[in-house]
Amino acid sequence: MEEKTFQTVQEIGFTSLIQKIRNYSGTDRIEIEKGIGDDASVQIIDNDKAVLTTSELFLEGVHFDLTYHPLHHLGYKIVTAAVSDIYAMNGDPVQILTDIAIPNKYSVQMIEQFYKGVDAACKDYNCQLSGGDSTASHQILAISVSAVGVANKKDIIYRNGAGKDDAICVTGDLGGALAGLRILMREKEYWKSNEGQQFQPDLQGYEYVVKRQLVPAARMDFINMLSESDIKPTALIDLSQGLLADCKEIAVQSGWGVELFTPAVPISVDTRKVADEMKEDVDKYAFYGGEDFEMLFTLKKDDVEKFAINFDDFAVIGRMTESKNEFRINTGEGDSIQIDL
Amino acid sequence: MEEKTFQTVQEIGFTSLIQKIRNYSGTDRIEIEKGIGDDASVQIIDNDKAVLTTSELFLEGVHFDLTYHPLHHLGYKIVTAAVSDIYAMNGDPVQILTDIAIPNKYSVQMIEQFYKGVDAACKDYNCQLSGGDSTASHQILAISVSAVGVANKKDIIYRNGAGKDDAICVTGDLGGALAGLRILMREKEYWKSNEGQQFQPDLQGYEYVVKRQLVPAARMDFINMLSESDIKPTALIDLSQGLLADCKEIAVQSGWGVELFTPAVPISVDTRKVADEMKEDVDKYAFYGGEDFEMLFTLKKDDVEKFAINFDDFAVIGRMTESKNEFRINTGEGDSIQIDL
Repeated sequence: MEEKTFQTVQEIGFTSLIQKIRNYSGTDRIEIEKGIGDDASVQIIDNDKAVLTTSELFLEGVHFDLTYHPLHHLGYKIVTAAVSDIYAMNGDPVQILTDIAIPNKYSVQMIEQFYKGVDAACKDYNCQLSGGDSTASHQILAISVSAVGVANKKDIIYRNGAGKDDAICVTGDLGGALAGLRILMREKEYWKSNEGQQFQPDLQGYEYVVKRQLVPAARMDFINMLSESDIKPTALIDLSQGLLADCKEIAVQSGWGVELFTPAVPISVDTRKVADEMKEDVDKYAFYGGEDFEMLFTLKKDDVEKFAINFDDFAVIGRMTESKNEFRINTGEGDSIQIDL
Repeated sequence: MEEKTFQTVQEIGFTSLIQKIRNYSGTDRIEIEKGIGDDASVQIIDNDKAVLTTSELFLEGVHFDLTYHPLHHLGYKIVTAAVSDIYAMNGDPVQILTDIAIPNKYSVQMIEQFYKGVDAACKDYNCQLSGGDSTASHQILAISVSAVGVANKKDIIYRNGAGKDDAICVTGDLGGALAGLRILMREKEYWKSNEGQQFQPDLQGYEYVVKRQLVPAARMDFINMLSESDIKPTALIDLSQGLLADCKEIAVQSGWGVELFTPAVPISVDTRKVADEMKEDVDKYAFYGGEDFEMLFTLKKDDVEKFAINFDDFAVIGRMTESKNEFRINTGEGDSIQIDL
């Protein structure tokens, strides 16, 4: 069969693209314990120490909108995103590198605001901004952020370790970041239809969800707790793509199916309020909304109660099933929706 | 004095911007031996091992032009740039991470071409593509590349180690990448003025310089030689910004002045030919043209002859002087141009 010569990435999807990219990985280095396919790569140093590395790209107009995203919040957020990937391997983020391409319309003072946010996040997460690059840009602000962390090899938690019947758990609450985005986009629309006026968004009553969108926090407390716990999750990922997508990652890599119980998914009242106002289904915020940066993990089912003694900000939302490649959503109202992985 | 509230980055320059960014480096982590300010950051693992990390951003229209830059060459070049930074610390690049933001106009097949170039470079430099991110982009292709390398702590060569009277040396020849760019831009202009026709650049006779621009090579041979040599350069940097800018880095960080001898700067006949055609000064290609990815290094003056026994593809082009903050260019025709650092 002749191969199509122009196929857009949208047609095949980014997951399929990444599968293709795996074929172009150069030399297999024996030090690389984990390459493409987890929250961070894992490079072994001297048998028992590991270096964890992650990198991400953020473009104006695609990943952020400066109409409503203050630059210092943006600086904070990109560090959160990078650090969260290191936490998702159960690692300690040591350094952050940022590359920034700056269009002429941005002043030095604006770029300093951005770096003030980077600084604040690095202080909160106990890591150091240690490098990066800055260049000119013709059109958009473009930022890449890398994080380098360390872990003992034996402590690393991968996406592929979930076992049959393991409990699927999540920290905090979900969908808040998307709810915040909905509010900010509504305010922006309002502002655009009243052009010429100063943009003063009315965010009263929406502080929680807006904060979830603009300055999300990575779950350092969860990782700190793990270092003192004698129970270790069997699999771990951070919620950056959305619950379904990230859950699917654990299921596919671990080789099992998933059953989620919709009523168990933690959603804040603030997030529910936004979904009601928007006349949208709040479950979709939780299932498809990304950027919550909560931790999604699996525990042996007998460990759940003991785990809860040291850490209570999590909920059991489902279980790993033996039906490989089956993703079942149990709505709790007698319905059960099946999605093929 | 009141601070100006809108100052462009162009006004103060990227070097000054980086100075400002240094104030926002978060928590000082004791593991970080070197943060912002060298070719790569240095993080110590277990006292004697070090992890070297570098990151760079490449934007369509700013750092590359796809009219004349084939995607597989671009993939090769960005890996060269990252690996070269690890070599410039005298390290071994182990892994490469690439982030790519892809506009709709690029097909999957085109992106695969890019990754074929990444793959070829990773094979040539003996490193593994181990991660990264891929997302959509609205306008331009944006790529970030990170490299992680290792070194024994004692083997690392910094920019700040040059001593008074040390010989300033450079591998290969300079200015070729800029000469290649000139030719490619000329062909593009020709194509634009003959629109509608297929773009078939006439590059005969310019193969060397065009290759220097499109698929530059990092000096792996130099680093391999160093591992077997008992002479170690006192300072080392890769030529990515241009000879003057990179030489200035060594001078400022080492705390000495610089004297360069123009006639000693190695320039290929192919590069000279292009400068002649363009009616430009070929020395400027060598001094200001970046992206040659040659190694600029300093040696104790008594070591030069011995060093040359094992490696002959380098030239002595100047010396470190005691006139701190003075940059002197000796043209060899009795002129001496002084530039303040």
